[in-house]
Amino acid sequence: MTDVLKNIRIVLVGTLYSGNVGSVCRAMANMGIRDLVLAGPKLCDNWDDAVRMAVHAADILEARRVTATLEEAVSDCAFVAGTTARGGLYRQHVKTPREWAPELLKLAENGKVALVFGREDKGLSNDEIGLCTHLIRIPVQPAYTSLNLSQAVLICCYELYGALGTYEPPVEKSLPAIAAHKLKLTALWRDMLLLIGFMKEDKAGHMMQGVQRIFSRGVYSEDDVAIMMGVARQAQWAAKNGPGAKPKGAGCLPRK
Amino acid sequence: MTDVLKNIRIVLVGTLYSGNVGSVCRAMANMGIRDLVLAGPKLCDNWDDAVRMAVHAADILEARRVTATLEEAVSDCAFVAGTTARGGLYRQHVKTPREWAPELLKLAENGKVALVFGREDKGLSNDEIGLCTHLIRIPVQPAYTSLNLSQAVLICCYELYGALGTYEPPVEKSLPAIAAHKLKLTALWRDMLLLIGFMKEDKAGHMMQGVQRIFSRGVYSEDDVAIMMGVARQAQWAAKNGPGAKPKGAGCLPRK
Repeated sequence: MTDVLKNIRIVLVGTLYSGNVGSVCRAMANMGIRDLVLAGPKLCDNWDDAVRMAVHAADILEARRVTATLEEAVSDCAFVAGTTARGGLYRQHVKTPREWAPELLKLAENGKVALVFGREDKGLSNDEIGLCTHLIRIPVQPAYTSLNLSQAVLICCYELYGALGTYEPPVEKSLPAIAAHKLKLTALWRDMLLLIGFMKEDKAGHMMQGVQRIFSRGVYSEDDVAIMMGVARQAQWAAKNGPGAKPKGAGCLPRK
Repeated sequence: MTDVLKNIRIVLVGTLYSGNVGSVCRAMANMGIRDLVLAGPKLCDNWDDAVRMAVHAADILEARRVTATLEEAVSDCAFVAGTTARGGLYRQHVKTPREWAPELLKLAENGKVALVFGREDKGLSNDEIGLCTHLIRIPVQPAYTSLNLSQAVLICCYELYGALGTYEPPVEKSLPAIAAHKLKLTALWRDMLLLIGFMKEDKAGHMMQGVQRIFSRGVYSEDDVAIMMGVARQAQWAAKNGPGAKPKGAGCLPRK
């Protein structure tokens, strides 16, 4: 159910750069999250940058709401997850976005959940952190912890989207090759390699170990087996009939 | 060992926008990856954008190398992982960055691994895909699959950095509260709530169930217990002595 993502709100606090707002919209669209609120924005540049960076996520940009403060932005949210890079007394309970994601999705089934991102230059104030019920720290290389605003939003949204488990990986269209077909392939290659003079009978056992090793690493699917069978057959044919000739049906990819 | 990240190379093919190159540098720095090659860049805007977006990752930007083709950019790489959003015959074996990450790190122990990202507008060509030994697809919402270039780089680098397992989560400085302390806390609150007239003796059992439920959800650590003990003691003191007075030692956070 991606519907739960409708209850996820991205709140940007005191944002300075319009381009970042646009990039945030695009990142949200990529991960199926659409509710954007700007809390006390301090935009100091050209709004065209926002439109340009949003690309095809202009609808999210257009539908944004603006409030004066973070309090107003999250007033209807039962759960407020703030992002922070700093430590401190009340920042002990931070977890990574991946750790929080399943819990935040569960909370979003019953109410609005806000993900809050601070200013580009100084993040969230202590008062703003105080409004948060959850704290998030994105794992980054300690030597360079300052993430771009839209990059931080992307990672949080990516982890929420990933935790949904609705993403369907591309389907492998060819089944894994069964052992019998692989044996048939190896036998055919053995004949072919002898015929074309790649190896002599007394060395065939040793050479075929090398070929089988290559096949076991690279020839996974029934399609792969069919292609390598075709290669062997064609090499045998060409060795007997001369180069360049095309026997019917050889050299084609297998049909489904 | 983060040293293995030294063997990870980011290759951008035919990049159009300088700002994206800068953003890529920053994302790389965040995740501890530093080797950048531009293969056949077609930059059509102001290079100042690259410098601006790189922020403190200017050293990665400066150290970039430029080649005419992808072939040259990956000539010393044993493993070439291309990113693609499209399907197709030879794109069956794609996996997500998270699925590939452990294997790519393992490969990087013994040789250079390139992560290859195509043009902003049309990705990698079929010939370029043909140079790849691995294919990566980033899981995104099917309705809007077009990621910004630097966002795609970030997610791949983030998954590699995460798979290293070197990130150390912030340490919880206060130990989880033990049951004896929680019982003492509950008893103190019971006395206090009776004293201040919040409840009467005959309802105390019922009310304290509610209070305990709140404590069990919110009062995790010894620090938490100490704070709530202080609240109860101070409330009792104020009920006896009037508001505003400050008995010695109350209202303070516990010392370590």
